[in-house]
Amino acid sequence: MMEAGQREALERLKESRIEGAIIIGGNGSQAGAYALSRAGLPVIGVASTIDNDLPGSDITIGVDTALNIALEAIDRLKVTASSHHRGLLVEVMGRNSGYLALMAGLAGGAEAIVIPEREITPEAIADIMRSAYDRGKKHALIVVAEGAANNAERLAPYFTDKSRLGFELRATILGHVQRGGAPTAFDRLLATRLGVGAIEAFVRGERGVLVGWIDGRVKTAPLSDVVRQLKLLDLSVLDMAEMLSK
Amino acid sequence: MMEAGQREALERLKESRIEGAIIIGGNGSQAGAYALSRAGLPVIGVASTIDNDLPGSDITIGVDTALNIALEAIDRLKVTASSHHRGLLVEVMGRNSGYLALMAGLAGGAEAIVIPEREITPEAIADIMRSAYDRGKKHALIVVAEGAANNAERLAPYFTDKSRLGFELRATILGHVQRGGAPTAFDRLLATRLGVGAIEAFVRGERGVLVGWIDGRVKTAPLSDVVRQLKLLDLSVLDMAEMLSK
Amino acid sequence: MMEAGQREALERLKESRIEGAIIIGGNGSQAGAYALSRAGLPVIGVASTIDNDLPGSDITIGVDTALNIALEAIDRLKVTASSHHRGLLVEVMGRNSGYLALMAGLAGGAEAIVIPEREITPEAIADIMRSAYDRGKKHALIVVAEGAANNAERLAPYFTDKSRLGFELRATILGHVQRGGAPTAFDRLLATRLGVGAIEAFVRGERGVLVGWIDGRVKTAPLSDVVRQLKLLDLSVLDMAEMLSK
Amino acid sequence: MMEAGQREALERLKESRIEGAIIIGGNGSQAGAYALSRAGLPVIGVASTIDNDLPGSDITIGVDTALNIALEAIDRLKVTASSHHRGLLVEVMGRNSGYLALMAGLAGGAEAIVIPEREITPEAIADIMRSAYDRGKKHALIVVAEGAANNAERLAPYFTDKSRLGFELRATILGHVQRGGAPTAFDRLLATRLGVGAIEAFVRGERGVLVGWIDGRVKTAPLSDVVRQLKLLDLSVLDMAEMLSK
Repeated sequence: MMEAGQREALERLKESRIEGAIIIGGNGSQAGAYALSRAGLPVIGVASTIDNDLPGSDITIGVDTALNIALEAIDRLKVTASSHHRGLLVEVMGRNSGYLALMAGLAGGAEAIVIPEREITPEAIADIMRSAYDRGKKHALIVVAEGAANNAERLAPYFTDKSRLGFELRATILGHVQRGGAPTAFDRLLATRLGVGAIEAFVRGERGVLVGWIDGRVKTAPLSDVVRQLKLLDLSVLDMAEMLSK
Repeated sequence: MMEAGQREALERLKESRIEGAIIIGGNGSQAGAYALSRAGLPVIGVASTIDNDLPGSDITIGVDTALNIALEAIDRLKVTASSHHRGLLVEVMGRNSGYLALMAGLAGGAEAIVIPEREITPEAIADIMRSAYDRGKKHALIVVAEGAANNAERLAPYFTDKSRLGFELRATILGHVQRGGAPTAFDRLLATRLGVGAIEAFVRGERGVLVGWIDGRVKTAPLSDVVRQLKLLDLSVLDMAEMLSK
Repeated sequence: MMEAGQREALERLKESRIEGAIIIGGNGSQAGAYALSRAGLPVIGVASTIDNDLPGSDITIGVDTALNIALEAIDRLKVTASSHHRGLLVEVMGRNSGYLALMAGLAGGAEAIVIPEREITPEAIADIMRSAYDRGKKHALIVVAEGAANNAERLAPYFTDKSRLGFELRATILGHVQRGGAPTAFDRLLATRLGVGAIEAFVRGERGVLVGWIDGRVKTAPLSDVVRQLKLLDLSVLDMAEMLSK
Repeated sequence: MMEAGQREALERLKESRIEGAIIIGGNGSQAGAYALSRAGLPVIGVASTIDNDLPGSDITIGVDTALNIALEAIDRLKVTASSHHRGLLVEVMGRNSGYLALMAGLAGGAEAIVIPEREITPEAIADIMRSAYDRGKKHALIVVAEGAANNAERLAPYFTDKSRLGFELRATILGHVQRGGAPTAFDRLLATRLGVGAIEAFVRGERGVLVGWIDGRVKTAPLSDVVRQLKLLDLSVLDMAEMLSK
């Protein structure tokens, strides 16, 4: 049974004489794309979200730009990190996904990475920072996903009382800054290829599919599969990051 | 009467056979420089703080770099601003000084600037944003100094309840990111000139002075004056920013 | 038969009690790595060159950073492009490989791309620029690989006489600027993964192999294969760029 | 006597019912502004040129942005500089003025600065580079103004024959890249202030003047003076740069 909203959307598209749609976006947009497709509209989806949590594409449009903005912030923080009882925290975007935090933390050499997929306690974070300084590190940098239980807002009260964990935390919250900026070469090339791929899929007669980037190639996957699957974060990357930070 | 800390500092310097010092920093550092100078150490101060609130220098080392980092964040936020009931907020550094917030807001075309030197209420901020959208603006951007009574932390509760002020706020808190980054040309040239100026002042026999940049030239001012004065923000610049945002 | 240089290299390594090597570099370095490997030294290669012309890795360390620097230059040039009888040219690195020029040109929306793998005449370049303006484009931008027969130096004389081709050319030659700069997130993550991959390959007992990135995964290939193959540029990408520039 | 071009310009402005003009530009534009002013059009000039060679303003709109782009290139080159018999050269804009080259060279710590206002021979440049390496420097970097007699094009043949001067030169020619890019905070604030200053001057009834930045303040100067004066480069800055590079 079709929902009222979808029925209205279809009618509006017909009135505007729009006979098909290429829908660029993440999980929410592609769920909508699938609904319109089932309602009879010729639809092609293009994989685009900075969270990189959309099944059907190894990497999605926007991730590389957001990642480089986060990394730039981390690089700048490292310049100022010096006090032995101070931790620097960067909160990056990601309501349900720790992908950006994980990759920014790995690329930026963070001492701790806090993501929804594997939470750690404030006490454990303080331990990691203490141990980083003990091993001669010049900074103690934590990257946190906004969607982590212990995000910047929730970690603040633990660290306000310096005597408690022995550490003062200075937070940077990037917020929507990560969505702006000039797109990187990778993102422009990915968008170009997926865009061309969407047109080619249309011409080939494919409908109700997502155009994504799989194993270094443009590939299409049925939207019916995409909306039913869940793309999980590869936590072995977190293991690697933790190993390298030691 | 000399304080114990200063006496100890002097003794340590003597032990290390340090016979003079060039002290680079803001109000706190220059107060220390003045104390050491009064205690007999040959001292020259160099004006450096990102807050630009040090008397004896029109502009201080670090301001230009911090300002450009804030502006870059503002530029990126503007790309993503689109929803008519959303405000974007950037909190920049400045515990007691609104200089960075004011200049970043003016250069970035902010709709509202909130600084310790002239506070405004959350209701007034919501009015400004509403009126910006009414006049056809594509974004409603607020720049806030961390030291303002209504900084990011304190504004959040007002805007969480969207029904109250009719606006949702998305915050970016830059924090120490503004202290890092490659220094701009302006800051390197200023540091070069003040550094050369400090050496030249030493050679000329000047002691207990601050080397600063006044009216486009290197000038020295007695530290005794510097520590007794207060550098006030030129609020006519805020008037100009408000006029231009309309 | 071993060359004198390799024998000397081996002896020096022995004297320094170096019992193995991880060699990071492109075709030249990996040829050396292969020679040392055949001479008995345990060797692992890691794929790194900004030219992206090394067999055994889809993409190599350094490419993404160099590409983004070229793209940034292209973006800046587009801001200044305005005159209808002026062409802007950017020469990017690549002595034998047009990869950087091709990808920078595609990502940056160049009107013409000149690479060693498919040369075009100055007359054809002028035609493309003329036609771009005729179609209402605001700029005529050419990206040239330094190794192209018609690189910046050789194109200059054709365009100096404006009456001849009807176009004035303003050239930017990036040169070694592309080798510097803070590495991008992609390059740091690739370097991290290939580095970890090299250690793991060593531990597994692999010798004389190149660690590269194939189909989105770390893979090893025998150096004997790598040095005998040639990695050709995918010229269908150039076709795509030409189609998109119209 | 009025020139035909000016008469035509005035007539066109009248036809379009344009009763006055604010003319933003450098020496050429302000000469035109002066001519229009003498012909009876109410005119205000605003000081803008990346060459910083316009009398009536200590610094002009565009200089700071161009300078930071040049400095970024220098920073990137320094990362790659390593070979002891290699010199890296950056050619920056400036047909008649060495201002950008001088300031970029000073801020970037160049070993040699070549400008039209004080030329040096290729042999002297090679000597400076040799001596830099002898003193333990890690790079030999030269900044050249495009308008210098020994610019990138003319220096190339001297250094091609490595045996002659003992040095290989790798050149980066920035070209119009320096005119693009997001304007820096300084440039936006300067443009804002001079723009507001131009309106205020108009309202005050001033005509035929240039609005510039003198001693840290907006000031106006008669265009009749501006077009008759010559703004000379302060060569003591070059002396300072040379002293600091040793």
